[in-house]
Amino acid sequence: MDGTMQNKNIMDYETVALDDADSALVVIDQTKLPAETTLLRLHTAQEIWEAIYLLKVRGAPAIGVAAAFGIYLLAKGIDAEDYDTFYRKFREHKDYLNSARPTAVNLSWALNRMERVCEENRTRPVEEIKRRLRETAVAMKEEDIRVCRAIGEYGLSLVKPGDGILTHCNAGQLAACKYSTATAPIYLGQERGYHFRVFADETRPLLQGARLTAYELQSSGVDVTLICDNMCATVMRNGWINAVFVGCDRVAANGDVANKIGTSVVAAVAKRYNVPFYVCAPTSTIDMDTPTGSDIVIEERPAGEVTDMWYEKPMAPAGVKVFNPAFDVTDNELITAIVTEHGVLRPPYTAAFQELFGALQNR
Amino acid sequence: MDGTMQNKNIMDYETVALDDADSALVVIDQTKLPAETTLLRLHTAQEIWEAIYLLKVRGAPAIGVAAAFGIYLLAKGIDAEDYDTFYRKFREHKDYLNSARPTAVNLSWALNRMERVCEENRTRPVEEIKRRLRETAVAMKEEDIRVCRAIGEYGLSLVKPGDGILTHCNAGQLAACKYSTATAPIYLGQERGYHFRVFADETRPLLQGARLTAYELQSSGVDVTLICDNMCATVMRNGWINAVFVGCDRVAANGDVANKIGTSVVAAVAKRYNVPFYVCAPTSTIDMDTPTGSDIVIEERPAGEVTDMWYEKPMAPAGVKVFNPAFDVTDNELITAIVTEHGVLRPPYTAAFQELFGALQNR
Repeated sequence: MDGTMQNKNIMDYETVALDDADSALVVIDQTKLPAETTLLRLHTAQEIWEAIYLLKVRGAPAIGVAAAFGIYLLAKGIDAEDYDTFYRKFREHKDYLNSARPTAVNLSWALNRMERVCEENRTRPVEEIKRRLRETAVAMKEEDIRVCRAIGEYGLSLVKPGDGILTHCNAGQLAACKYSTATAPIYLGQERGYHFRVFADETRPLLQGARLTAYELQSSGVDVTLICDNMCATVMRNGWINAVFVGCDRVAANGDVANKIGTSVVAAVAKRYNVPFYVCAPTSTIDMDTPTGSDIVIEERPAGEVTDMWYEKPMAPAGVKVFNPAFDVTDNELITAIVTEHGVLRPPYTAAFQELFGALQNR
Repeated sequence: MDGTMQNKNIMDYETVALDDADSALVVIDQTKLPAETTLLRLHTAQEIWEAIYLLKVRGAPAIGVAAAFGIYLLAKGIDAEDYDTFYRKFREHKDYLNSARPTAVNLSWALNRMERVCEENRTRPVEEIKRRLRETAVAMKEEDIRVCRAIGEYGLSLVKPGDGILTHCNAGQLAACKYSTATAPIYLGQERGYHFRVFADETRPLLQGARLTAYELQSSGVDVTLICDNMCATVMRNGWINAVFVGCDRVAANGDVANKIGTSVVAAVAKRYNVPFYVCAPTSTIDMDTPTGSDIVIEERPAGEVTDMWYEKPMAPAGVKVFNPAFDVTDNELITAIVTEHGVLRPPYTAAFQELFGALQNR
């Protein structure tokens, strides 16, 4: 049961939610934005899998929460009294959902956490396990909001009212539950009357900056200007940008960052024009098992995204070779600071990460 | 009388030419590439004006030659025996054509040169003036080819067989008569079996890199790979690029360069990854009356080029603010060398330009 809701503010909806009847996972179909705001009500395993696979719900934090709610709904529908039967069916659902986007770390991270709820409560009645699964999924969503809000507070401490801010891709509310990462300082600043002037890179080839970031910021009343990716040097050279905020998909142990393609271009240009470049990253994205950015495998995507998608007719010669990496690596020396929910980390990052994780373990 | 010619190589056509009957200006309609190869046969002043205004013929050198052939054809059609009547009508045509793109320096430069042919031959019969106008237009085209070829030779001296070359926008054969500027070393290298691996930035928002550069290089058998503008850092970080070649619209007296939007992004990224950044510029584009890049007025173009053009549906929220500069300024310190038809100029550019122009005057 889907519904297209026109003439309502995108910010009136939650990116990912359980419906009131506790019977459906409700997400905004991000592939239709900004032309249409369509809410998808997902019930079956296949519906949930397809929504993730087809990027209808996207953004690492949002995918994690959607998977948690999704596996809860599927677990709730399992007709079994005994744990072993329940767990076997749970695992089938989990493995299926996990196959939707094998490289998205938040998907498996969220599903593993839900599985642990089953295992840790194996001696309890199945109904009790289902209840605890729901609590955990809801807690994960609240935690996401808390983490993003904390990132926003720390990020906000790095800028001042009236500043010009550049962002790339969409690490915004549509990629998470609320505030998100790169946009968290912007939304918090907006609540407090900071009057930022935000510039959003359109972010070729999938245009998440134009379709999603410009859309959600405009809908929230933020002063946002859309530019092509290749205009980032001009706005910096003009002195219009005081800080760059971007999200990230993975942070290596040395502080190298994998994020949407083009991020490292913005970072190199920011360095050139002495603009601080901030990466907003929940500590869960810091991967101490990946030594450097060069150890991160960069996904390549189909040529048609560059040559044909969106267009009325092909915009390149037939059969032309295309290189279409979905992410790039930004070298740690181009990153002014990494903003986490536990504070602002400065270079050298290896030492900063070790100190942070040491302190968290000793809590 | 236009003609769509499918299944023929784009390189079989001249970008700008007089037809054999000496009655029409023949240009390739660049707004229809790469989907259709359409030759336009232009006769009237309005047809020629529109072809320039609507970017059917584009690229500074090509516009100059098209204007020269165009004004010759219009002059040829003037029915007058006496110089004063002829010259008055010539000036009407000239002023009209010159209004097509007021900022393109090559347009007025070419038309002024044709006007001088009239003035210098005012005592001769009108038929003789018409003949000399034709000779001058043909000479300008030959000169363009000679200049571009010389730029190609000097550019080729900066690279070696098998090198990876990145280019931005279209300073290719479609922007000039043959070889052009940024592509001249590539075409000359191709003739000599250099086997370059060329990467072409798609060049948002008008996609000249995808629609024109990738197209003409592929048609010429060059190994070309299309990338989005925001992927330039990835190909450089991967070590695939040995040199960047770009064209230019104007060079200031201090060596700052105005060129297609995004050029300065590539330059900053090239600096970061120690890739030489070469600007290919006929000496006619060096403007000693413009002290620095900051003195160059940057044309801003309509928002729809970013949000709607080419697309099946709008790709940004309705009414979003857009900043759409058509050009940017690359600071001289990011430019490894400026390649002219008289040689490779190195920093400091002010001194290099003074020396060059001094030597040319003393010839």
